[in-house]
Amino acid sequence: MAQASPPSFFDRTVGQLREVWRDLSLRAWPGGGNGFRPNLPDEDAARLRQRIAECVASRGGEVSARARAAEIGRAYLSLAPEGRHRFLSILAQDFAADRETVDEAILAYRQAKDTVELAAAEESLRDALAAPRVRLLKQLTTLPDGFKFLIDLRAELLDHLKDDPTLRGLDRDLQELFTSWFDIGLLTLERIGWDSPAALLEKLIAYEAVHEIRSWSDLKNRLDSDRRCFAIFHPSIPLEPLIFVEVALVNGLADDIHKLLDEGAPRAESAEADTAIFYSISNTQKGLRGISFGDFLIKKVVESLLRDMPNLKTFATLSPVPGFRRWLDTQLAAAPANDEPPRRRFGGANGDMSAAKLREALARPDWLQDAALAEAMEEPMRRWCARYLCQEKSGGKALDAVARFHLANGARLERINWLADRSPKGLKESYGLMVNYLYRLGDIEANHDAYVGQGQVVASPAIKALLKP
Amino acid sequence: MAQASPPSFFDRTVGQLREVWRDLSLRAWPGGGNGFRPNLPDEDAARLRQRIAECVASRGGEVSARARAAEIGRAYLSLAPEGRHRFLSILAQDFAADRETVDEAILAYRQAKDTVELAAAEESLRDALAAPRVRLLKQLTTLPDGFKFLIDLRAELLDHLKDDPTLRGLDRDLQELFTSWFDIGLLTLERIGWDSPAALLEKLIAYEAVHEIRSWSDLKNRLDSDRRCFAIFHPSIPLEPLIFVEVALVNGLADDIHKLLDEGAPRAESAEADTAIFYSISNTQKGLRGISFGDFLIKKVVESLLRDMPNLKTFATLSPVPGFRRWLDTQLAAAPANDEPPRRRFGGANGDMSAAKLREALARPDWLQDAALAEAMEEPMRRWCARYLCQEKSGGKALDAVARFHLANGARLERINWLADRSPKGLKESYGLMVNYLYRLGDIEANHDAYVGQGQVVASPAIKALLKP
Amino acid sequence: MAQASPPSFFDRTVGQLREVWRDLSLRAWPGGGNGFRPNLPDEDAARLRQRIAECVASRGGEVSARARAAEIGRAYLSLAPEGRHRFLSILAQDFAADRETVDEAILAYRQAKDTVELAAAEESLRDALAAPRVRLLKQLTTLPDGFKFLIDLRAELLDHLKDDPTLRGLDRDLQELFTSWFDIGLLTLERIGWDSPAALLEKLIAYEAVHEIRSWSDLKNRLDSDRRCFAIFHPSIPLEPLIFVEVALVNGLADDIHKLLDEGAPRAESAEADTAIFYSISNTQKGLRGISFGDFLIKKVVESLLRDMPNLKTFATLSPVPGFRRWLDTQLAAAPANDEPPRRRFGGANGDMSAAKLREALARPDWLQDAALAEAMEEPMRRWCARYLCQEKSGGKALDAVARFHLANGARLERINWLADRSPKGLKESYGLMVNYLYRLGDIEANHDAYVGQGQVVASPAIKALLKP
Amino acid sequence: MAQASPPSFFDRTVGQLREVWRDLSLRAWPGGGNGFRPNLPDEDAARLRQRIAECVASRGGEVSARARAAEIGRAYLSLAPEGRHRFLSILAQDFAADRETVDEAILAYRQAKDTVELAAAEESLRDALAAPRVRLLKQLTTLPDGFKFLIDLRAELLDHLKDDPTLRGLDRDLQELFTSWFDIGLLTLERIGWDSPAALLEKLIAYEAVHEIRSWSDLKNRLDSDRRCFAIFHPSIPLEPLIFVEVALVNGLADDIHKLLDEGAPRAESAEADTAIFYSISNTQKGLRGISFGDFLIKKVVESLLRDMPNLKTFATLSPVPGFRRWLDTQLAAAPANDEPPRRRFGGANGDMSAAKLREALARPDWLQDAALAEAMEEPMRRWCARYLCQEKSGGKALDAVARFHLANGARLERINWLADRSPKGLKESYGLMVNYLYRLGDIEANHDAYVGQGQVVASPAIKALLKP
Repeated sequence: MAQASPPSFFDRTVGQLREVWRDLSLRAWPGGGNGFRPNLPDEDAARLRQRIAECVASRGGEVSARARAAEIGRAYLSLAPEGRHRFLSILAQDFAADRETVDEAILAYRQAKDTVELAAAEESLRDALAAPRVRLLKQLTTLPDGFKFLIDLRAELLDHLKDDPTLRGLDRDLQELFTSWFDIGLLTLERIGWDSPAALLEKLIAYEAVHEIRSWSDLKNRLDSDRRCFAIFHPSIPLEPLIFVEVALVNGLADDIHKLLDEGAPRAESAEADTAIFYSISNTQKGLRGISFGDFLIKKVVESLLRDMPNLKTFATLSPVPGFRRWLDTQLAAAPANDEPPRRRFGGANGDMSAAKLREALARPDWLQDAALAEAMEEPMRRWCARYLCQEKSGGKALDAVARFHLANGARLERINWLADRSPKGLKESYGLMVNYLYRLGDIEANHDAYVGQGQVVASPAIKALLKP
Repeated sequence: MAQASPPSFFDRTVGQLREVWRDLSLRAWPGGGNGFRPNLPDEDAARLRQRIAECVASRGGEVSARARAAEIGRAYLSLAPEGRHRFLSILAQDFAADRETVDEAILAYRQAKDTVELAAAEESLRDALAAPRVRLLKQLTTLPDGFKFLIDLRAELLDHLKDDPTLRGLDRDLQELFTSWFDIGLLTLERIGWDSPAALLEKLIAYEAVHEIRSWSDLKNRLDSDRRCFAIFHPSIPLEPLIFVEVALVNGLADDIHKLLDEGAPRAESAEADTAIFYSISNTQKGLRGISFGDFLIKKVVESLLRDMPNLKTFATLSPVPGFRRWLDTQLAAAPANDEPPRRRFGGANGDMSAAKLREALARPDWLQDAALAEAMEEPMRRWCARYLCQEKSGGKALDAVARFHLANGARLERINWLADRSPKGLKESYGLMVNYLYRLGDIEANHDAYVGQGQVVASPAIKALLKP
Repeated sequence: MAQASPPSFFDRTVGQLREVWRDLSLRAWPGGGNGFRPNLPDEDAARLRQRIAECVASRGGEVSARARAAEIGRAYLSLAPEGRHRFLSILAQDFAADRETVDEAILAYRQAKDTVELAAAEESLRDALAAPRVRLLKQLTTLPDGFKFLIDLRAELLDHLKDDPTLRGLDRDLQELFTSWFDIGLLTLERIGWDSPAALLEKLIAYEAVHEIRSWSDLKNRLDSDRRCFAIFHPSIPLEPLIFVEVALVNGLADDIHKLLDEGAPRAESAEADTAIFYSISNTQKGLRGISFGDFLIKKVVESLLRDMPNLKTFATLSPVPGFRRWLDTQLAAAPANDEPPRRRFGGANGDMSAAKLREALARPDWLQDAALAEAMEEPMRRWCARYLCQEKSGGKALDAVARFHLANGARLERINWLADRSPKGLKESYGLMVNYLYRLGDIEANHDAYVGQGQVVASPAIKALLKP
Repeated sequence: MAQASPPSFFDRTVGQLREVWRDLSLRAWPGGGNGFRPNLPDEDAARLRQRIAECVASRGGEVSARARAAEIGRAYLSLAPEGRHRFLSILAQDFAADRETVDEAILAYRQAKDTVELAAAEESLRDALAAPRVRLLKQLTTLPDGFKFLIDLRAELLDHLKDDPTLRGLDRDLQELFTSWFDIGLLTLERIGWDSPAALLEKLIAYEAVHEIRSWSDLKNRLDSDRRCFAIFHPSIPLEPLIFVEVALVNGLADDIHKLLDEGAPRAESAEADTAIFYSISNTQKGLRGISFGDFLIKKVVESLLRDMPNLKTFATLSPVPGFRRWLDTQLAAAPANDEPPRRRFGGANGDMSAAKLREALARPDWLQDAALAEAMEEPMRRWCARYLCQEKSGGKALDAVARFHLANGARLERINWLADRSPKGLKESYGLMVNYLYRLGDIEANHDAYVGQGQVVASPAIKALLKP
């Protein structure tokens, strides 16, 4: 729906405070760009530089500066992608820290003689290193939707970052600000249910990144009495979940995502469940990249579930293995055309299928329909997957992104489930394999230290057995 | 009321997450100091260093580190003043930035050749300058009452700061963290009334710094239908006002604080009021020194009042002049013993009273009871006060602390009221004088710029007339 | 989704209060019918009678009686339609007032000699007339969903009432109880928006009775910033609207429902609207028949809108005319086959179209597509409609149900809009005509009295002109 | 604080709905009595009758009638006690049921031939018996504070009832309305704490009827972490508790009220408590006499406590015995002057003290200070009290009012505590004795039935032993 244009802001005397506060909205108005043309040509860019400089100088006092900052924010929203990129470049290059001031502060630092002088010099140096643009970024927080605006701005910046490394300083500033503003001491965990606001629930539908929510009725099923959904919120962005998790209350480790997502399945008695399965975790704000909420989320959710349902004994995930297929295809492509079954490597008869045969099987369009074949593939596929998850590393961390997340949180790789996700996405990513990561409260610390310290993947005996030849 | 000691924390396996979360409280327990002796002797200090180092290293993952941080916090609370000072010193000296790392980062910075390299070098230098203790401080925020704990810790640190400048670096770290955490984008303005929680209202009684609240019934009167009270809150410290203001809805500028505080006075019809008088503004958290909320508070309150009561035309204060008496006494002491009335200086007959006579009058214990004398003193006292407020500066700012606050917010010095506060405190601070500062929305920006830019005190014509000879 | 059966309730000792309270739910459990067979055969009916008698006697105290009442409620929910009818008959016949007791009370009443004796006798007589079943009905309110259960029970009873007049006494008891329990002093008006709970919004979709809500996106459009939606709630049934109204903020009287329902239409600036159009009012609870909320709803909504948007000048509806087509078809069928245009009756050339011609036109399947024809029909159709609404009565009230509602509320019949609802339903009910009823605050009382007292339909001059020959 | 008078209401056109709703307040205005003189002389009474008749006739529609009802309510508030009594008499006598109409309905009832006719006749008779004043009473509920107004009106009526039995019919009407409006299905149990609104807490101070709350600090102690306070609320009177209970969490049955009320006593660890002691239960609304909340309160509180603290094993009271001293004094006065110790009656040596000796001891002003004497009195006093509570009846119920309440709720008389309340009130009422009533969940039903059915006081073996000779 189109929105009419509001009265121009710059026409007002800044002193009309009453209206000022009312107009601090950052929503984009068609024609509300304060005269900046969409692609921000040179003369507009000059004018923008001027406006930003005024904000940074806090002329007229902090409250007025924030009103002007709102206009700049609104101008940004009115720009075309090219103009926005230019806007970001201006911030990055024209409002960076002043090298000369830094050099002076460095000099003073080097001459500091005792603790006291050093503390003062450190402070001066830190101040000198703080880019003036940071003042503008901070001013934008007081505005309605200010935090969300900055998150979205960074999301756009990240799109440019690869091709335009000059934006990196601005990106660092934003990340640093976000690290403080989204300190987990400020965040709250809230349960989401069918009685949550529709305005919030529609965002779950939009943000769900693991198993797409197909409709409001699919969503309602995921919020039923044998399910739980939790999200983390920031107090200044009330209807915007930062990360959320969907949990199924079941008996025993779940091994098939389709059962969990089936709207027609009978509802379980949640009071009798002994296991909580985290079957979907979605980060929602690309612009908060580098700010981690997942560890906090999982542990807070475990705490909350335990309080309400003391019967719960097991906390585990049913997780995708997003990088497995790509890795496996490469491995299999490299295998000799007609190799022997790797008897020595994989041992028992069950696991007997050579890489070539497996490659051949996976190449058949109907392998999934061929029940006997699919069954024969189970053991070797689970072996390959165990190898992928436990032994393939990149920079000392697990190669698989989801594994990285859970292992760093202190989970243990518990079980590999063949054909647990037979959706097109599941087949495309991992040939249908899914994994349970187990969160055992008494082991979390040790698991974390083993993984983070020595890069060791803690796995169940069953998984370890799969690794044996 | 004494509290029993909880089970010791270190006895537990850290993996017992459920209890861990429950015990993250930072309340002081007698005997809950984890074995640290109150004065923190050397061996205990060594053990504390060790514990802090573990937190800073985030061993066992972030959530576990925060559990350990809670213990350190609890230990702090169990210490005697001397032990706490030592604790702060350890943080300040043993967990400061590492000079060697900084020097390396400086070297890299100096060698940076282009924008991209520079941004990376700046980041490294900033990282190097971040003291490791900051990690511990951040970990404390997730705990219940964590922010309040840090605020109170800084309040204690500030007490030591004058005598122990080595704490300055730690103080700067805290101030910087608070600047982000208490960003006004995170704060909310809330109206406080008699239906607010008692747990909150008792804090108003405790924190009121300008005109003491004598009882719950005095407080109830200040929250009556012709009054307003607003406070600023941080979402993570829900029952703790950061700053609050008391407002009376009246007709015309108030010139007598006793009328406003009289519990027996008839209640006015607030709907018919044309003036909002801010008669008390109290900062509540010493530990947030340097983080300013007042400007934001006043402007948000004006906005809120205007929305509900469009009849309001005037927003002004009835403020103390805390430094006047001390200044005036010095001035008068310096005056010649038997001087002539300063006719040329103060002009008309009304203002005629020499400094010596004034000094003499003020020295009489009964001057306030002598109505004729008090009346004769009015004009000269107002003249002296005008001079004090408009012409006396310190570092380019007004000498009077309250004046500094309102002038920097863009208010105008409007009127000086003789005998407006006849309480012992009022007489002791300012011989009973009070002042109205006027917030005229259209002038706030210009006033602010005049004051902050040129140090100019914007005053009403009536005040200016008092300055004329 | 199917629900598992809970543990049987009668197996428990009633003293296990903790569980008792937890199991007071009235939700239907498959197999949770406590052994009552679905069609309630004679022996089960006898057992039910026994149970009800125990509740009515409050054996074991009031709280226990209510626990037993819950079981009876659950048993009802487990019955098939035939069994439920039988259940209702038992209540109606076996737990009615005792005639003998009433006769005794009548005797005492007749012998009462003074005011005091009379008051006592009246009280005894009233008590005697109170059917014992009322105790059971009251006990059901403490249970979760108790009020909703009773509302739904009455809705089912109403379905039987026409064919089974023996249920009438029970129906009267329910209506009387509802009249007290749903006293408007207990109800609250709440604004509904896109940030309302999904569990509530899905009920709007289900309950909307006037213009079907086709999807969640249709609903979102109806809750947009240029719309308002209000509902009345009972505090014990929080997510269940009793009646709700949808309002469009526009300029001038709306004359076309399609414009209001168009999801693609531009959003208006609500602050500039001068007119609030009530375009849909839906009662949601059949079981509350005879309890009227509409008058209260409209006046509370007007009050609420005025408070937020003082610019609003006009409050009116855009309403269907549900009985018009049926009435008109009968009228036209009775008209002579080839009559002259009723010149004398309808006057001017514009209105010229004989009943026979109109009948013929309406019989054409494409009359709506024939723009010229449709235009020619406008005037005569509006005349017929004016006659229908102003002059056709039943029992002294307007024949049209919607007209009855608004006229009794004090509205004035303002305008008849040709082709304002071209949906199949609109055409089927009223050949596309819709009506504006105008709520003018200063006239509501007089309008109400004229209509309720003398059966007079207050209409605008324009409508009156349509009635002139 | 005095309030200014509002603009007169009758001056307005009733159509000014916007103001109408705003002025429906029932607060008393000085001079807001609409011209009714305080003592309501005859001509004013006539005018009042006229106004009430208009309301009852609902002229102008229901909403307007309610606006007029507000004026009548306001007029009532402006009257002096004599005028209010007259107002009540008018309602009682001039707006009672019409005897003629009732007689006609009786005739129809007698002629009813079948169930259907009977149901209709019953309904007509009930309608005829409904006094017209009830319409006015119902109209007052929509107004702000309407329910509270009616409760207070009945409280005043009850004061007159003994001397003026003509008000009885009106009293019955009010009680019947309250029975529906305050149905426990509409009420909520809420925990009250130090973070509850001060406006609510000040009512606890005012309403506490058992152990006076001496100050805000006394109250704060009663809301500490080892205490619980619960109240029952009606949704339309949000800050007005209907009944509340104070609970102490302790270990073992409490036997001394002073320990519970001691502000300086150490706070217990509530998580370790095994017993919840209900040490004060206060009904707050005299006007709700006859509407019982206590049973519901206790059982809901037990449920709520159990949910949070599964460790609790025992639920009991520490209750006063308000009628004991009066009863005992009478008994002892009747005893012979110098009787022998009732050896045979009270058995063992411990209980040896004759009635005459006891009378003599109690007559000594210092008996409480004489520790040996007080100890010697313990056993005989407990025996007398056991006899008082278990054997003294009035109308089949326990003579003691507090005993009546708990026994009817299904509690068991558990223990008699000598010198448990040594306050002046405790000594005056019961010579310092207090009693524990025990709520054992599994026995509540049987206890209730034994007491209500056979008038049997269920007591512990220890109490029964005290009854033995």
